[in-house]
Amino acid sequence: MNDDDFKRRLAELEEDRVHGASELARRCLRIAAASAFNAPAGDTGSLRRLLDGRAAAMAGARPSMAALGNLMARWRAALGKLPEDDLEAARRKAAEAALALVEESRRAVQEIAARTRELVGRDRTIITHSLSSTMLEVFHQLADRGVRAIITESRPLYEGRRLAARLSEWSVPTTFITDAQLGHFMQQADFAIVGADSMLPDGSVVNKAGTYLLALAANDQGVPFYVCCESFKRGTAEPKLEEMDAAELGAPGWPHVTVANLYFDVTPARLVSGWISEEGGPDPVFPPPDG
Amino acid sequence: MNDDDFKRRLAELEEDRVHGASELARRCLRIAAASAFNAPAGDTGSLRRLLDGRAAAMAGARPSMAALGNLMARWRAALGKLPEDDLEAARRKAAEAALALVEESRRAVQEIAARTRELVGRDRTIITHSLSSTMLEVFHQLADRGVRAIITESRPLYEGRRLAARLSEWSVPTTFITDAQLGHFMQQADFAIVGADSMLPDGSVVNKAGTYLLALAANDQGVPFYVCCESFKRGTAEPKLEEMDAAELGAPGWPHVTVANLYFDVTPARLVSGWISEEGGPDPVFPPPDG
Repeated sequence: MNDDDFKRRLAELEEDRVHGASELARRCLRIAAASAFNAPAGDTGSLRRLLDGRAAAMAGARPSMAALGNLMARWRAALGKLPEDDLEAARRKAAEAALALVEESRRAVQEIAARTRELVGRDRTIITHSLSSTMLEVFHQLADRGVRAIITESRPLYEGRRLAARLSEWSVPTTFITDAQLGHFMQQADFAIVGADSMLPDGSVVNKAGTYLLALAANDQGVPFYVCCESFKRGTAEPKLEEMDAAELGAPGWPHVTVANLYFDVTPARLVSGWISEEGGPDPVFPPPDG
Repeated sequence: MNDDDFKRRLAELEEDRVHGASELARRCLRIAAASAFNAPAGDTGSLRRLLDGRAAAMAGARPSMAALGNLMARWRAALGKLPEDDLEAARRKAAEAALALVEESRRAVQEIAARTRELVGRDRTIITHSLSSTMLEVFHQLADRGVRAIITESRPLYEGRRLAARLSEWSVPTTFITDAQLGHFMQQADFAIVGADSMLPDGSVVNKAGTYLLALAANDQGVPFYVCCESFKRGTAEPKLEEMDAAELGAPGWPHVTVANLYFDVTPARLVSGWISEEGGPDPVFPPPDG
């Protein structure tokens, strides 16, 4: 992957409005692996510098998604251990390190979905918001357990429609609603469950705008609100909440009117009933009181 | 207005997705006045029966909107007092009674807006949801007082865009957001204020779906949540929450997936900081404890 190819992939990553943090993190790792195999470099030192630069660029591409930064940081640590005297071995090891992280991410999602399946049990209704690869796996694993879904269209780009199509393929009885209806439909739900783009140190959740409203409605009606989130989505600082192109709302322009298109909101930890990660859960409190 | 014309107007009323309860109630009264003037009738008795039937049809056309039923009931009471021996005088009196109620409704909205203007004061930010003629008047009266607005697009038919256009004409600095962003943007608001389609006997509010979420976010962040609502929107029973054509969401059809398009939700009285009606307010509790 030469520099032009990489820049194109990086731009796609920055502009992606449809995929969640887990999926985009894995895409970064696959770009990292491809770069390791064939990026132009004459020795291990220059390969390491080039890969390190690409990793840094990808880590910063989506500031609302801690997983990218965390997984890239782990890959960059692996780059420090490449053999100095064998460029081909260095390429292979760097690529293997990236693909091992892809596999770790996949296993984490599978493990989270399995825990969630046990928690939910049979013949229950889950309400969720937006689309995440983790929630897709949760529904997939629950499809033969009589699960029902209530899902939002998720404006502005309607990624909820992609979730609806998948649930339909799996014959999951699904109610598809506008984002604004989720308060009313909470009364039909046994669980509110979402993925997350990042978890903040204080346990609050960064996810698609509207997640905070889902959590408020769940708390107001006594419906447990769970977050399914891999451990490597834990962020170390308040992320920048990404603002996207206002044109996505499809509204005409008006003088004196600013169209805002903030993709994420922050759900406070006090509204979260439990965390489900590949390490365990649901944990009733995050971080733990002594954390 | 002959029967065919009336049936056409009634169908328009039933299918209207854009106008709020106050505006539709006034439209009913204007239809009532036109019917009084020129509906086919040979004597006062047959005129009264015809008008009474049309009033009943309009009263039931929008079960989520108590104002239609209440104002039509008042007009039907006036029909009982028409002069028996003078058809032209009966026509005139019936029309005058309807137009007097239109005027009463207009004055109520003006009075509510004036009270709200005093409450809000200068240089404050109001967040609202959907579009109501009452909130339009509130913003109009506050336009020269440095008011700022945060407004939602209001899916599925985007009536928030009509509000944006009016606020723009009045040079009100406005932030226009998707419905799902209202939780995040609550932090920029001094007041959350909405109109209402109906008030239930227990003080809860029927309004465009998403209003309940606005109230939850306002309460969570300590922002006062006010409802501007004429006294004749008080309903006597739990209304049917109208469900509209699922096609309005523009989603493709999928097997196993039901697209829901419930236009209204119910905001419990405990989330309402105060009621502003033409009779007074903001009243901290509704109904009053002895009511």
